Amino acid sequence: MNEFDFIRNLKYKRSLNFVGDDCAILPKNSTEDFLISSDALVEEIDFRLDWASPELIGHRALAVSLSDIAAMGGKPTYSIVAIGLPTALWQAKFMDRFYDGWFELASKFEVTLVGGDISRTPAKVFIDSVVIGEVPTGKAILRSGAEAGHSIYVTGPLGGSAAGLRKLVGGERFNPSASDPLIEKHLRPMPQVQIGQQLRKSELVSSMIDLSDGLSSDLAHICRASGVGARIYANDIPFSAELMEFAGSVDVMLDLTLNGGEDFELLFTSPEPDLGSRLALDIFRIGEITPNSGVIELEREGKTELLPPGGFHHF
Amino acid sequence: MNEFDFIRNLKYKRSLNFVGDDCAILPKNSTEDFLISSDALVEEIDFRLDWASPELIGHRALAVSLSDIAAMGGKPTYSIVAIGLPTALWQAKFMDRFYDGWFELASKFEVTLVGGDISRTPAKVFIDSVVIGEVPTGKAILRSGAEAGHSIYVTGPLGGSAAGLRKLVGGERFNPSASDPLIEKHLRPMPQVQIGQQLRKSELVSSMIDLSDGLSSDLAHICRASGVGARIYANDIPFSAELMEFAGSVDVMLDLTLNGGEDFELLFTSPEPDLGSRLALDIFRIGEITPNSGVIELEREGKTELLPPGGFHHF
Repeated sequence: MNEFDFIRNLKYKRSLNFVGDDCAILPKNSTEDFLISSDALVEEIDFRLDWASPELIGHRALAVSLSDIAAMGGKPTYSIVAIGLPTALWQAKFMDRFYDGWFELASKFEVTLVGGDISRTPAKVFIDSVVIGEVPTGKAILRSGAEAGHSIYVTGPLGGSAAGLRKLVGGERFNPSASDPLIEKHLRPMPQVQIGQQLRKSELVSSMIDLSDGLSSDLAHICRASGVGARIYANDIPFSAELMEFAGSVDVMLDLTLNGGEDFELLFTSPEPDLGSRLALDIFRIGEITPNSGVIELEREGKTELLPPGGFHHF
Repeated sequence: MNEFDFIRNLKYKRSLNFVGDDCAILPKNSTEDFLISSDALVEEIDFRLDWASPELIGHRALAVSLSDIAAMGGKPTYSIVAIGLPTALWQAKFMDRFYDGWFELASKFEVTLVGGDISRTPAKVFIDSVVIGEVPTGKAILRSGAEAGHSIYVTGPLGGSAAGLRKLVGGERFNPSASDPLIEKHLRPMPQVQIGQQLRKSELVSSMIDLSDGLSSDLAHICRASGVGARIYANDIPFSAELMEFAGSVDVMLDLTLNGGEDFELLFTSPEPDLGSRLALDIFRIGEITPNSGVIELEREGKTELLPPGGFHHF
């Protein structure tokens, strides 16, 4: 059993109606709902201190939670940060630099820090990032609204973060003065907060999720929640010029995109087959929803193959 | 600099108006505010796997956050739990047992789990427990309302948790079928949720905090936030019969109470000198607020000594 199965089991066993999307939706008042997202970041699993500065880790901690708010079409408002760290990092002013990076991103989206906790750990850093957002009552975009015939879109080129990770594993490092776009995509992801709200306001989006676990996994989450299947057209997946140069082949680019996560673009569906033109948005149609519940197909060079969810899971 | 100083600095440097009490207070609607509390629990710092079962750790994770809501007079409603754990514990069904303990306490206070995150760690367990509560608009009890002449109260006997910790350090263990009250006080703290709300409804409480860091530290938090001082009467501090038997002397009991934390009773002030009788509540008056800003005195056997904050801090 992996963590996704565990959460599903817990949800049914304990009747947890609020659990299952990128954020929990809580009633706020007669016109708005609160969205709440929680993301755990663990040293050596989600980040490495020799790859990322404290500022970059601060940025990332907030960015991944903002991305969850974006994925439901919300406007982020407040955040709560819990951090555990060993004494040596405390003495080395890790926290000051962490919050420099955190507040730089927070000011961009007018997010206010409202609380948190600081703890010592025997070793290793862990962070829990909670972000609260707002959305008009009943208007949060769920994973469960996709229907057969709807088009599948993404907000930007995919696979870049996983390629950046490979470069880091290969020994390359982030250089702030001459930043590599793939490494930057991995270490300094930008959450799609504005476009998430535009998509929600259009009332033309039927389901949405952020690409954190990999296209194959995240699309499977939508298909499962909606009781549908999906067909992806390999030729329509957008890749950046830097990724093409790095990967050298479509096979590698597809592997990075399908099974490597953390692009933090939005993946969503719409009954509109030409939503980009209609909304004047730079988005990419990569496939369509099918009635074949749970079946995800990849069409490439006239052939169709089945796509098992191959993204990241912890257990 | 310890973590309390860091948070104070951050608050002023970044103008964080919501930070500084047991919970952040966020406007919900025209009649209610949301309270949000976050507590990090780290293996080997806040709990040990050879002392506490997964069920007890689940109980504790929720209890400490409920206590923060109680300290502001709120009613807890929702919770979000982020957990990181190593693969071996995942395989050993740690999570199932953790949530058994968690839900047992949650059902007592009608708290709904609305979200969270699960992550693998290289080693060690960490937990971030977030609880959301509600309170009528503007009625949350802050740390900052104590005034000279107000009486200082606690809701129950102190020092028991620190004594239980000493027993555990000394090799004694929790036995569910013949539970030691001091060890139980340490491992299974009960948050004072009902009395916290009763006190708030009375409109006779001027400041409140929960006793998590130790009486000397937590009282110092109230004095600092309120710009006042305090005088405590050693003879009026309530101790349990079990603590008297364990400690053997007033010196030891006072040390456990003043410098050992985690009793999770409430510490509060009121202009009423006889609040227990007036509200028919089993509470204990232990001293009074003085105008001597920042000065905390302990009166014992006719002598007055100054009390430095000696409670737990991480750094």
